[in-house]
This record gives sequence, C-alpha cells and structure tokens, in this order.
Amino acid sequence: MTVLTILNSPGTEIPSLITDLGERDGIELRVAEASNLSQALPGTDVLLMWDFFSTALKDAYGSADRLRWVHAAAAGVDSLLFDELVDSPVTVTNARGIFDRPIAEFVLNYVLMHAKNSIGSLADQAEGKWNRRSTRDIAGTKALIVGTGAIGRGIARLLRAVDIEVTGAGSRARSGDADFGEVIDSATLPEHAAGFDWVIDIAPLTEKTERLIGAEAFAAMDDSAVFINVGRGDTVDTDALVTALRAGQIAGAGLDVFDEEPLPAGHPLWSMDNVIITPHMSGDTDGWRMRLAEQFHRLFEQYLAGEQFPHTVDKKLGYVR
Amino acid sequence: MTVLTILNSPGTEIPSLITDLGERDGIELRVAEASNLSQALPGTDVLLMWDFFSTALKDAYGSADRLRWVHAAAAGVDSLLFDELVDSPVTVTNARGIFDRPIAEFVLNYVLMHAKNSIGSLADQAEGKWNRRSTRDIAGTKALIVGTGAIGRGIARLLRAVDIEVTGAGSRARSGDADFGEVIDSATLPEHAAGFDWVIDIAPLTEKTERLIGAEAFAAMDDSAVFINVGRGDTVDTDALVTALRAGQIAGAGLDVFDEEPLPAGHPLWSMDNVIITPHMSGDTDGWRMRLAEQFHRLFEQYLAGEQFPHTVDKKLGYVR
Repeated sequence: MTVLTILNSPGTEIPSLITDLGERDGIELRVAEASNLSQALPGTDVLLMWDFFSTALKDAYGSADRLRWVHAAAAGVDSLLFDELVDSPVTVTNARGIFDRPIAEFVLNYVLMHAKNSIGSLADQAEGKWNRRSTRDIAGTKALIVGTGAIGRGIARLLRAVDIEVTGAGSRARSGDADFGEVIDSATLPEHAAGFDWVIDIAPLTEKTERLIGAEAFAAMDDSAVFINVGRGDTVDTDALVTALRAGQIAGAGLDVFDEEPLPAGHPLWSMDNVIITPHMSGDTDGWRMRLAEQFHRLFEQYLAGEQFPHTVDKKLGYVR
Repeated sequence: MTVLTILNSPGTEIPSLITDLGERDGIELRVAEASNLSQALPGTDVLLMWDFFSTALKDAYGSADRLRWVHAAAAGVDSLLFDELVDSPVTVTNARGIFDRPIAEFVLNYVLMHAKNSIGSLADQAEGKWNRRSTRDIAGTKALIVGTGAIGRGIARLLRAVDIEVTGAGSRARSGDADFGEVIDSATLPEHAAGFDWVIDIAPLTEKTERLIGAEAFAAMDDSAVFINVGRGDTVDTDALVTALRAGQIAGAGLDVFDEEPLPAGHPLWSMDNVIITPHMSGDTDGWRMRLAEQFHRLFEQYLAGEQFPHTVDKKLGYVR
C-alpha cells in the first residue's frame, strides 16, 4: 500500500488525473489542507504539495513517520525546505521545466514593453494623445540573467533568439556555458552589473541569494538599465530597489515577485510610472495546472515502478543542480 | 553639375551628412518645403523626400524639367506616387531595409502584450489590485502576415525565432517561400483568415490593397484573433474593424496606422480596452533619421558613380518587387 497525500489550499481544484490515482489498487489517496496536515501525515509515503506556497510541512513534520518523497508543484522550493527535511533521507522534486518557456516569454514581454515605452503609449492613448516618438531596439542590447537554472536557461535561449546578448550570473564563475557563454559569480554582482540593458533576476531563494541584489548592485547598474524580477522577492533588497528607481540609478523595473505578496496596498512600487507590477503570474499560462498534474503523474508512475527520477532537488543547495 | 533638392517639413532637422553634400564640387544643394517646391524643381536632378509623408511633388511636378531620381525616406511610397511620375522615366527608391527589424520588434511587442494581457496588468496596477490569472503562451501560436515585402519578411523571421508559426499573404499564392513557407493570395483573404491567432497587416497601399481587409475578412477570423496593423491605415476598412471589435468577431487589435492620422479625437478606437493605439511610430527607433540619412548618402554616391541601385520601386506595382 502506497499512501499519497495531497496538500491543497481551500477552494483549489485538483485535476482528476491526480485524484483518480486513489482508485487504483494499492494506493490510498488523502487530501489535506494546512490545518489538518499533521493528521494526514502518519502513514503517508508521498506528499504532493499542490498548495505550492505552503510552509505547513515544517510544523506538521513531526507526524511524518514513513515519508519518502515530497513533490512541490512549483519551481522554487524555498518555502518548503527546512532543516529537518534537508537532513532527512526524504527525496524532494519540483516542477522543473514546466515554467521555463512561459516565464521566458513574460520576461521578453517586460523587455519589449520597456524598450518600446508601452506604458507611455497606453497613457497617451487614455488621453487620446497622438505623441509620435522614437523608442529602443532590443536587437544588440545586453542582458544579465542572475540564476542559471532551467528557467534562467529558458530566458537566455529566448532572448538570444531575438538577438539580445546574454551573460549569466550563478554560484560560480565559468565560461563556455551552452546557454550563457560567460557566467559571473553572483557574489561579485556589484563588480559586474555595469554595461547591461536588462538585469533579470531568476535566482533561487537560498541563504546565499537572500538580499543578493541590493544598494551596491543597483548603484553599479547603468542608469538606462531595467531590472526584472521573476524569481523570488527576497533575493532583492526592496527598499534599495525603490531608492535606486527614485534616484534614477536605474531606468525602470518589471516585477512579478515581491518580498511580501500580495504587494501591500500603498507600497511605493505600485505607483511608479517606470515600473510594471504583475501578481506572481509569469509562469502561469493557460493549462498550467494540468501540465503540473501531468508532470506529477509521470513522476508518480516512476516512483511506483522504482525508477530513478529525472531530476531531484539538491536540498542543501535549495535547487535542482 | 548635379542639383540635389531636399523636400523638408517645417522644423525638421536634416543631418549634416546630407547637407554637407552641398559643399562638394559639382553639387548644388537646395532645401525646399511643400510651399516652394515648384520653385526649387527646375534644374533639379535628384529629389530627396525627407518629408516622407508629403504629397507635394504631384502638384509641383510640372516644374520638374530634368528630374532623374526621387528617393523617399520611408518604406511606403503610396503618398508619393501619381500617374505622371509612374509613367515617367524617373527612378524612385525608398528606405528599404531600414524599418524591417524595428517594425518586427514592435509587432512582437503587440503580440506579447495581448498574449500576456498587459493592458489588464497595467489597469490592475493603477488600482493597486493583485489579480493573479493565467495568460497565453505565444509559442505554437499562428500568425498570418499580410504583405510579403522586406518588412513582412522581417516580421516573419522574428516571429519564427520565438516559435510562432507563420503564413504569408501576398500578390500571388505560392509555397516554399524562404521566410513564409506558404503564401496565400491576399485577394482570397476571407477564405483563409480562419485559424490564426495573429493577423498582421504590413501590405503596401496600392489600388489592389485599398480596403483589402474588411467586414468579410474580419468575420472569417477566429474570435480569439488579434489584428495588428503596422502598414497603412487605408488597407483596412476601419468601420468594419470597429464593428468586428465591438461584436467580438476578433479579440483585440494593435494599431499603429490609421486611414486618418492623427487618429481623430473621440474616435471609438481610442477608448477600446482591447485595442492598443500607437501613433505611426513602429519603425522609429533611436537613430532612425541618421540611418535614413546614411542610406540616402550611400545611394547618392552610387548615383554619382553611375552604379545601379541595389533596389528600386516598381512604380506600377507601388513597391519594391
């Protein structure tokens, strides 16, 4: 008997592709929410974090007596991981691959909207103003992508496809990377942040990347640079970002993630006219939940068959290596 | 002695790269505006239409007594051409190549803004509303590009680079085109307009393309389709476009050109929330006037050297073949 527990958030639908697993011989399906996870955990072999932002496992973990595998239906696992889980033999997987292309497209959308001054065009349109002006080419511009995981690579490939020059920033400096060419050590960001038109943050949130991009890095960026964050809000010093935008140290921003979500009412970022705010949705394109379900379903079959997973999270690093 | 006359619009600067030509031995430079073009034309060998929207040559043409070459600093030459010029031996050239990539990027921006619902995101931002939702992937979507000239090809290449499937519509049906693959006869547009996510108009304005895209074509498009026009407003029946948008026959539009420019105050297109209006600027990226000047300068050197131009307008067709 394999016990599969799904941690869900109230009111969220779980595709039948997954709930139907409970009708198979040898599988017991449990659906829990954060409030009753500790009751569901005893006997659970596999935990599917369908509520992918939840931190509930940490509190309930004492009730886990035979947990072998936790799958997060998300790319980032920062909210899931905690010391006991990291030190345990439990395998952790994530939604690697599902969000690469959608997030890359979202980044390109930010890039083009800034290059073509779309905020200005929509504002002119609202006033019925015919305001002909010149805008920027994106061909030949330069992007620094902070984060060289699967999504960062998806962004690099799409930006290169439209003739943007790409450099990476990751956990160690190297050259000859297939997607990035040169990769700088992200710990040395302030030394290398100049000379880019687009600085794109898709770093996983770990101890090493918390507040990685702060006052020093923003000061080093070109004043024509646009900062884009589609990773985790906590990798940025938000106050330093606001200061840099106000001081004109950078030209604008496209922000999908924030250190507090939803971004609080009245936060200065909401009303800056060179900032595009979106509500943590860069990866969510039509059918995304079904794609997450199909991925878990594939992994679950591999689990039952005793096969090796195609990817697992390096729990000490906090991301898939 | 070669007499070069530049038709300029009031208050527009002409780069010194061009005005300096007047300091060369054997070259006389004249700068005219629409109001005094007929005085400047006698003796003129070469006319540079720096005021590229002007129709002034038609009225002043009786004064042209030795005109050999007219260069339009624009891609479309519809406002320049008239019967006497078409029937004359005067060579006409245009700004072929200069606008291909900028306009392609502008089209991709419209595509992404519609796919990612950027109008909605900016509206939510203005209200401080955190409205998480799913959007559309552009990968795998289908575009029909009406107009298979140099700019249409630039659009085709850029859209294909981001994994959009492309079909062309041109003056004759054919297959195996290097940029488009299949090209349909644009005269049969209503029969072929279904099944596309993006219908992009970059057709030159000629007798054959005037009001080419009208009620029938819009009715045939998918109701999820977005219509984009970066060519000429007169290739579209604007009233039919408004009707199609209101009736939900198509999902939205991105419009840079109109049959009347500036788009008149109070026109219904200004205030449709699924329409992006921009003021005929899709090709104008920083440095565009200098690129136009450099191109004319190159052509002028070729003219003086008696070399053949790399491209000329087929005046009967109304575009470069």
